[in-house]
Amino acid sequence: MIDSKQKILSSKTVFKAKLFNVSEDLILSNEKEYHFATVHIHPTVCILPITPKGEIYLIKQFRYLLEGTVLGAIAGFIDEGETSLQAAKRELKEEAGIEAAQWELLAKTVVMRSVVHHVVNIFLAKDLEITKQNLQDEEEIEVVKMPISEAVEKVMSGEIYHSSSMTAILMLDKLRQEKRL
Amino acid sequence: MIDSKQKILSSKTVFKAKLFNVSEDLILSNEKEYHFATVHIHPTVCILPITPKGEIYLIKQFRYLLEGTVLGAIAGFIDEGETSLQAAKRELKEEAGIEAAQWELLAKTVVMRSVVHHVVNIFLAKDLEITKQNLQDEEEIEVVKMPISEAVEKVMSGEIYHSSSMTAILMLDKLRQEKRL
Repeated sequence: MIDSKQKILSSKTVFKAKLFNVSEDLILSNEKEYHFATVHIHPTVCILPITPKGEIYLIKQFRYLLEGTVLGAIAGFIDEGETSLQAAKRELKEEAGIEAAQWELLAKTVVMRSVVHHVVNIFLAKDLEITKQNLQDEEEIEVVKMPISEAVEKVMSGEIYHSSSMTAILMLDKLRQEKRL
Repeated sequence: MIDSKQKILSSKTVFKAKLFNVSEDLILSNEKEYHFATVHIHPTVCILPITPKGEIYLIKQFRYLLEGTVLGAIAGFIDEGETSLQAAKRELKEEAGIEAAQWELLAKTVVMRSVVHHVVNIFLAKDLEITKQNLQDEEEIEVVKMPISEAVEKVMSGEIYHSSSMTAILMLDKLRQEKRL
């Protein structure tokens, strides 16, 4: 039953913004036709820089969409022409003033399975060099260093509630437990 | 510096769909004005039903946005007039044919911190009774039972790559390790 796949009969862009498009899709499923509006958001990167002592750097930033200051992982959109790794290196330098010599793609995730298509590439950065932040005009970012165990507690207690940050921290914790880091 | 907050000067809806709206926001930040387009998506629930043996039920479903069959947690949109718990109970019954006597809100998460506002309420369901699926017309869902440890492996290997499903599974694993389940 799972194999009688849905088929996209047509898809047209009905709204365009700088970082996303909205499309109206006509889908054939079980011999019936359905209309769905979907949002296609430019991909992002999310970075966890880790020190040899098992501390990570997170950021605190005011987010008007969430009506408050939010603690979570360093992240940002991949620019035109950039690879995800290039974007991760740029964002880590810009937002946290950190350069890293060792990089690993921890996971390539999607934030939803319907309605929104958005890919988040989660990177681990090691062998760190602390330099200077290089923020964009509208950005105000505080860098916070803490042991992974403390970040995990903040995930479990709900203080860190951004999904990709939660996933990244819990995956990192799991890798350390299994001595795979 | 982190306290000089951004202020929303105006926000107007520029596109409406069944499950989301798009707005154009004018933001004051550091005494400069910025325009941002943002997507406001109806909230969802994500449910992990767990057996006394430490097994969980996941679902496999074809997702045309992701161009394939995707393994992950049971989930769905909260209907008009429903609480998140009512939606979780309804989706668990509809998608997996399961009723649960014990419910716990594991986390209230957001999938992005800018551009998209979308809340996912992650529930844990215990004391299960297996009944019959009640799928909507366009849905084809296969229910899969596996030990939590196997689900965690699938998260770490990238086979489970939906962010909220990953978060839910890793949080559940953590709770079990800490005997807080």
